Amino acid sequence: MHLEVLLTHQPIPYPPRAWGNDPGAGALAEFYGVVRETEELRPIRALRYEAYADMAVAEIRRILGELEKAHPCRRALVLHRLGEVPVGEAAIHVRVEAAHRAEAFALLQGFMDRLKREVPIWKVAAIPRE
Amino acid sequence: MHLEVLLTHQPIPYPPRAWGNDPGAGALAEFYGVVRETEELRPIRALRYEAYADMAVAEIRRILGELEKAHPCRRALVLHRLGEVPVGEAAIHVRVEAAHRAEAFALLQGFMDRLKREVPIWKVAAIPRE
Repeated sequence: MHLEVLLTHQPIPYPPRAWGNDPGAGALAEFYGVVRETEELRPIRALRYEAYADMAVAEIRRILGELEKAHPCRRALVLHRLGEVPVGEAAIHVRVEAAHRAEAFALLQGFMDRLKREVPIWKVAAIPRE
Repeated sequence: MHLEVLLTHQPIPYPPRAWGNDPGAGALAEFYGVVRETEELRPIRALRYEAYADMAVAEIRRILGELEKAHPCRRALVLHRLGEVPVGEAAIHVRVEAAHRAEAFALLQGFMDRLKREVPIWKVAAIPRE
């Protein structure tokens, strides 16, 4: 599986940049986790994320490698934003391409389920709306 | 839930057109089903899709309405291409936006599981590669 993993302080682009065509890929699944206007019922204007960056990238690659054994996929992209992420902007984007739909969804959801538990990236602050 | 459902003979755009911002949406999930280079192990250059168009749109809306009761989401888009769809191009695009990830994935996958069984859209031909 071809992997791209990047932590970035820049906005995550939406719409995403297209990948080059893979004629064996029948399923493309994408997920964006977006900062909502409330955090624990309080209005916010942004969340702030921090990471142990090198370890986070290594853990993301390890989790994807483990999941791939059960759910073979062709390409995966993980972008996680760090620093201040305003409401309405994505904190994370995951894209998975596979021959078939079932594998793509299984890898994507399995990854999201493990991300918060196993990867050293944290919400360190919710910045209240004035 | 706001719904957009369209059957089209035009290519499905990728990257997708962005939706306007919804500050209560924390999860955006997208799926593209893409024509692969082989169909039942034979090389092809395209698949051809046909539909009972009015009934297909009504059934898609009915399925989404049913799924929404268990998995409340905020917006959903279904684009299905008809006619000849070349290898590498999408036959279907589904986008779901929800407050949380679990509902978005549940609606999206539940819809894909029911689409082939319940909606009158069919692969009517696989066009072999010369």
